[in-house]
Amino acid sequence: MNELIDHRIRRSWAAEGSGSAPLPAKALKWLRQRIGPVTPGVNVRPDSALEVPPSRLEETVKQQLFDLVGTKYVLLDGSERLARAGGLSYLDLLRRRLAEELPVPDAVVLPADPDEVQAVVDACVRHDVGLVPFGGGTSVVGGVAALRGEKKAVIALDLARLDTLVSVDPLSRIAVLRAGVRGPEAERLLGEHGFTLGHVPQSFERATIGGFAATRSAGQASSGYGRFEDMVSGVRLATPRGEWRLGVAPASAAGPDLRQLAVGSEGALGVITEVALRVRPKPSASRYEGWVLDGWEAGSAAVRRLAQRHVLADVTRLSDVDETEVSLALNSGWKTSALRGYLKARGVKQPCLLIVGWEDGSEAEVRARRRRTVAALRCAGALRIGRVLGDSWRRGRFSGPRQRDVLMDHGVCVETLETAAHWSKLSELRDVVRAALTASLGPVIVMCHVSHAYETGASLYFTVLAARDDVDPIGQWRRAKAAASEAITGLGTISHHHAVGVDHAPYLAAEIGSLGVEVLRAAKAAVDPTGILNPGKLI
Amino acid sequence: MNELIDHRIRRSWAAEGSGSAPLPAKALKWLRQRIGPVTPGVNVRPDSALEVPPSRLEETVKQQLFDLVGTKYVLLDGSERLARAGGLSYLDLLRRRLAEELPVPDAVVLPADPDEVQAVVDACVRHDVGLVPFGGGTSVVGGVAALRGEKKAVIALDLARLDTLVSVDPLSRIAVLRAGVRGPEAERLLGEHGFTLGHVPQSFERATIGGFAATRSAGQASSGYGRFEDMVSGVRLATPRGEWRLGVAPASAAGPDLRQLAVGSEGALGVITEVALRVRPKPSASRYEGWVLDGWEAGSAAVRRLAQRHVLADVTRLSDVDETEVSLALNSGWKTSALRGYLKARGVKQPCLLIVGWEDGSEAEVRARRRRTVAALRCAGALRIGRVLGDSWRRGRFSGPRQRDVLMDHGVCVETLETAAHWSKLSELRDVVRAALTASLGPVIVMCHVSHAYETGASLYFTVLAARDDVDPIGQWRRAKAAASEAITGLGTISHHHAVGVDHAPYLAAEIGSLGVEVLRAAKAAVDPTGILNPGKLI
Repeated sequence: MNELIDHRIRRSWAAEGSGSAPLPAKALKWLRQRIGPVTPGVNVRPDSALEVPPSRLEETVKQQLFDLVGTKYVLLDGSERLARAGGLSYLDLLRRRLAEELPVPDAVVLPADPDEVQAVVDACVRHDVGLVPFGGGTSVVGGVAALRGEKKAVIALDLARLDTLVSVDPLSRIAVLRAGVRGPEAERLLGEHGFTLGHVPQSFERATIGGFAATRSAGQASSGYGRFEDMVSGVRLATPRGEWRLGVAPASAAGPDLRQLAVGSEGALGVITEVALRVRPKPSASRYEGWVLDGWEAGSAAVRRLAQRHVLADVTRLSDVDETEVSLALNSGWKTSALRGYLKARGVKQPCLLIVGWEDGSEAEVRARRRRTVAALRCAGALRIGRVLGDSWRRGRFSGPRQRDVLMDHGVCVETLETAAHWSKLSELRDVVRAALTASLGPVIVMCHVSHAYETGASLYFTVLAARDDVDPIGQWRRAKAAASEAITGLGTISHHHAVGVDHAPYLAAEIGSLGVEVLRAAKAAVDPTGILNPGKLI
Repeated sequence: MNELIDHRIRRSWAAEGSGSAPLPAKALKWLRQRIGPVTPGVNVRPDSALEVPPSRLEETVKQQLFDLVGTKYVLLDGSERLARAGGLSYLDLLRRRLAEELPVPDAVVLPADPDEVQAVVDACVRHDVGLVPFGGGTSVVGGVAALRGEKKAVIALDLARLDTLVSVDPLSRIAVLRAGVRGPEAERLLGEHGFTLGHVPQSFERATIGGFAATRSAGQASSGYGRFEDMVSGVRLATPRGEWRLGVAPASAAGPDLRQLAVGSEGALGVITEVALRVRPKPSASRYEGWVLDGWEAGSAAVRRLAQRHVLADVTRLSDVDETEVSLALNSGWKTSALRGYLKARGVKQPCLLIVGWEDGSEAEVRARRRRTVAALRCAGALRIGRVLGDSWRRGRFSGPRQRDVLMDHGVCVETLETAAHWSKLSELRDVVRAALTASLGPVIVMCHVSHAYETGASLYFTVLAARDDVDPIGQWRRAKAAASEAITGLGTISHHHAVGVDHAPYLAAEIGSLGVEVLRAAKAAVDPTGILNPGKLI
């Protein structure tokens, strides 16, 4: 068995499980002061309590799948199926901890290449079996839940074996990667040719190229490298109507850009098997540092200034006052005390931490670009606080999901959500989302940061902590999420980079119009007339 | 009558007609040496020879349109209808000169605002009348030909009265403009608020905001300001299924980007009535200059270097050896002679002219950006030849279509076509298109330039001159265009910025797949179930 297939019964982000890594006593005390008493581990049931229903796949279908991809690449084992039952949202993890009923696929199928993917898709059409494309399984919006829809059976199509670099065009700086390549492996493969993709979302360690494309992912360095859709030069999809390839030129006026229909299609319009991506030379230098602005308005104005003057650092991440406060509280020590003293002496009343990082380019280029960013930051009244916080952020850049596991172990309701809006609406959007979460959850910590900035607006990323309601923990978050989503609607987008999945589907029509939903349905009917692809997602 | 409605029986680009502006004797002599004898004016027939068929619009429909937009905004006059019979391609102009049968609309309707547009669309649905959105009428691919398709009657929906700036959000740098605003008026309206759009295609003087969006236009300063689709933050469309609005945030992962389906939809998915656009501060400085590289390969490598190092000038335009030769031949004088001497002394055997221009920013910013471009150009072996040719290009930047009129008066078959490809295929693409045109047309001048460069590739823009075949002038160009289009297919896009219209429709399936065409048809069926919108275009 391919060593990439390392999924466990995923009750946590880390493949190895989070165990019961203790939260520092000081942090726990501080948390309790803010959100009230928390009760670790109530209701957590053992793995054995998880029920795996028998596979509903008919024998003839199983046999066909064996023939198409090889017997050992059709997994019928309970724990393998359970591992592809869903993604890694708070509710996904909670359901597993509570041993709730899960949408378990009837088989896990691992084709070797795009042709085998097409053959599996064709088989699913013939037998009217649902098919959920499964990459890193890191969706936090229900995007990989193995829902059956109206089908009798559903398979998880795991793309782990599509793990190669197909080609590199160094002159055009385009590399074709198969859909199952994970973030670190993509960097390793491209690195051998002197290139980088520069796409580093928090899910980087597990998520795949196909998943990045299917969800319109945005990485932490999106200000420098662009969103994933900006990198996509071409896509190859397996659809019930046959193979579909898009993208022959750097830009085109040959009608609507259908690549932008495939990108973000979340497995509902086809299984993405290969992606042609714009790559860049591997950077020879990088630099991270921290700055502080006094208050949210000053902070967001500074980031806007950088974006509108085209001097954003590759990574640009502004925390609001609450998130900054939590960062400092959790990083207490003499350096933090010294920082607090320094900020007080400089008259900063409401510190907002800004992390800026440069990754793209040679040492001289990084230096030159940093100079331009720093000049604009000084004009905006930012205070430089040195490289320590920058480097510490970089070290911990992928640790968020693991911290969530630990907090869940301690009985905390902890989740993130995100949106984006134009600059003129950004503060209002932040206010209404905070208010909605607070009204719904009671004593709560709501942290917010901007991590993706554009000339016309920016993203907002919220982290929410509350004491878990152990009577109805799922309902508790569902209500909070609904309140936040309703607050977002009309002011911003329902998702800046987490995608639609199941969780955001009810809010899509408000954003793209009922006509937009009908257009997507029509496109789906054209490529997937019997509706086998990722039932119940997106639309 | 609104003063914007100044269309004549358009036999030429200029509203006032090109008259018989003489070509300098020297240029004509030179042309004849290259392409053989040309015969001015053969077959050109008087205006009165143009036939305007009676309007097929039923009286009840006329009456409804009178009621909806006012009697004076429903034009039934022959010359007004004739003026909206098509666009401004070589074949469009030729057909008018030859008094061929034209696709004349049965009425020209001029609604006042988006609501009136919606009402006219609704009326067309009720009465099953085709509707062709008409902006500046500058399509060179048949995009505004008043084809009836299967409808008994068709109207031209002229958007000239949708000529206002709706709103400006200075913080987010977004302005909403109505679809009928032309290039210069857009700049004037935005200029009052201190902003610019920076979109200056060759059609700038006549073309409209709605047309730019409908065709995925790219302006001459696209390297700095981006393609039009990069500027579009939101769109408002009138469709047979009602109004459709898209675009709430600077970026989104809420499913596929449907704005990119509306942009480039060429009137087939709705009438674009308003566009929300990213704007930038009006520049306070600009600078244009000329450089020379030795040969096409060195020239395109230099532009690639600029694009991949992110130091492109806002305007970056590289002519191949033939285009450079023509520029110099037509600009003969002591300065040109001095330039030839200088290039010879420097050992430049095959001069390729590169025009670079900076428009975006303050004087200090332009200076700083120019420094970075110049450093990269010097590394690429480019020779600076000063500002004269740069400024002369800028003065004549919109004159191409007028020159075409003059050449047509002299019996020259003259047209342009364009494509784009990845860097590794660019030279091959240029070669095969040149070969196809030469094989089809015989003695020919084929000039080529790159005017839009990206990290992964660039556009190619060809200008073709041959002696007109006065026995079958239309067939002559049709065959040449078909040969060029077939040469492009598989290597590049069938259109980088002219769009699909009628002329490129046969090649669309090869580019986006038959599945892509079916997806577009499905989207159209969802928004326009009876197919009234721009019959026969795009798909």
